[in-house]
Amino acid sequence: MKITILGCYAATPRTFSNPTSQVLEIKNHTFLIDCAEGTQVQLRKSKVKFSKINHVFISHLHGDHFYGLIGLISTFMLLNRENDLHVYGPKGIKEIILLQLRASGSYTGYNLYFHELVSKESELLFEDEKVIVKTIPLQHRVYTNGFLFLEKNTERRLNFEALASYNIDKLYFNKFKQGGDMVLENGVIIPNAQLTFNPIAPKSYAYCSDTMYTESILPIIEKATVLYHESTFLESESHLSDKTMHSTAKQAALIAKKAQVQHLILGHYSTRYNNIEMFKEEANTIFHSVHLADDGKEMEFI
Amino acid sequence: MKITILGCYAATPRTFSNPTSQVLEIKNHTFLIDCAEGTQVQLRKSKVKFSKINHVFISHLHGDHFYGLIGLISTFMLLNRENDLHVYGPKGIKEIILLQLRASGSYTGYNLYFHELVSKESELLFEDEKVIVKTIPLQHRVYTNGFLFLEKNTERRLNFEALASYNIDKLYFNKFKQGGDMVLENGVIIPNAQLTFNPIAPKSYAYCSDTMYTESILPIIEKATVLYHESTFLESESHLSDKTMHSTAKQAALIAKKAQVQHLILGHYSTRYNNIEMFKEEANTIFHSVHLADDGKEMEFI
Repeated sequence: MKITILGCYAATPRTFSNPTSQVLEIKNHTFLIDCAEGTQVQLRKSKVKFSKINHVFISHLHGDHFYGLIGLISTFMLLNRENDLHVYGPKGIKEIILLQLRASGSYTGYNLYFHELVSKESELLFEDEKVIVKTIPLQHRVYTNGFLFLEKNTERRLNFEALASYNIDKLYFNKFKQGGDMVLENGVIIPNAQLTFNPIAPKSYAYCSDTMYTESILPIIEKATVLYHESTFLESESHLSDKTMHSTAKQAALIAKKAQVQHLILGHYSTRYNNIEMFKEEANTIFHSVHLADDGKEMEFI
Repeated sequence: MKITILGCYAATPRTFSNPTSQVLEIKNHTFLIDCAEGTQVQLRKSKVKFSKINHVFISHLHGDHFYGLIGLISTFMLLNRENDLHVYGPKGIKEIILLQLRASGSYTGYNLYFHELVSKESELLFEDEKVIVKTIPLQHRVYTNGFLFLEKNTERRLNFEALASYNIDKLYFNKFKQGGDMVLENGVIIPNAQLTFNPIAPKSYAYCSDTMYTESILPIIEKATVLYHESTFLESESHLSDKTMHSTAKQAALIAKKAQVQHLILGHYSTRYNNIEMFKEEANTIFHSVHLADDGKEMEFI
């Protein structure tokens, strides 16, 4: 599971920093999460193949999370994209995009599907045989969702050494991966545990931006492998985080601790701070495994 | 008169090139012309003060000319702008911007005025005591205007040496600048020509992008100091320029020659070309004073 931070600063694009956008690579999927102005250039800089992006998840309709979407959709058009593109985001996003496409006399040569969200409860957005994506309802000034990306329970891993001693047809291997036992010709049963190892634990990524501190998300993100939680401010500016419905680094760490996640990534820093290390220091007083998002940074969790 | 090219390539933003946006500084005005994605970052890189921009002119509603406008308007909001902002552009631009501001639950603390254009004839957009701005109706796939920026006739320049010999009160100087004669106490008239020099010739900037070759613009841009004319293609790709209603470098030069302008700036290059010098070479076969726009380039015409 690999997370590439395209941008992680709040508010406005600047010369050397970008507002929110991330790429999550999980089980052969390349998911784009939020899409601020400049995202397509950041994708190029990070060498992410445009054609691999089939799903875009937009948390909320503040500009620093979606003003780059119309440009990306247009560029896909100019590049003669053929794959379907699915956009998940708050109700209203479809009208905004289509109004602009119509004004330019354009239409996409590919199928563009909008999945508009209105629910205040967590809901299933996407599922295939390997991955599930759900919303994480957040508390912000406008309707906002985070997103939980979950690997499905993976298969048991074959113990080739053990299997070799039985000289068995490979056709049965799939059955063993699913937990089935082996029945020999003489009727003797060899239990699955002697033929396979436990599966690799499925990983998960919980993306939570933008939001005020809210424990309502804990049951959804519980024990996630990685939590990205916004920390627009430090505790010294908690009056601003309350007022603007954002979080502090300490609050992000509290959520990480209470949800018992393995790793916390901080981001969405206010541009008032010159040194983002202060966010890590503040969060580390509460939680041990704190990572700082930064533009262009790639983080792999094995 | 100074032109700063923020971006001058066609179609999509790339790692090292930007779609169309320019700043024109003329007679204490700072006009923004077109506003593609990434314009606000390009403004920062060129150190143009955001607060000086009070007028934005949008040629047409293709993304590579206006997708950066909503971001700029939002950033002005976050910077607590107070000055009025005037946006001139095709009908439809107001709905696109306001829909997005409403979706984000935002409103601008400054007055935001839209001047929506529908006319196919050249019309006056702006006038004060020093500058006039008019539309230049262009021929493109969607409704498009170029813009003509004209300095007004400037005042006559005082001949201080001549004036000193008369020991006259400075209160009269303004009258002489306007062409008035001097009447001495004894009734003798000193003609203005002995007291002043001719005024500096007023300068003008004609911005024409995007457009196919059309001689209908000649009467409007005639004898302009500087013409910016799009040259998306070279003559070797004239089949593409015809199809997409763009121009070649040669066609841009022909317009410059027929309009008897002083200088031609080329831009809006298709990203298929690796070397923009070829545009200059092609145009130079027709017209002598050819300048190449390039991102970040500043051009001053005195």
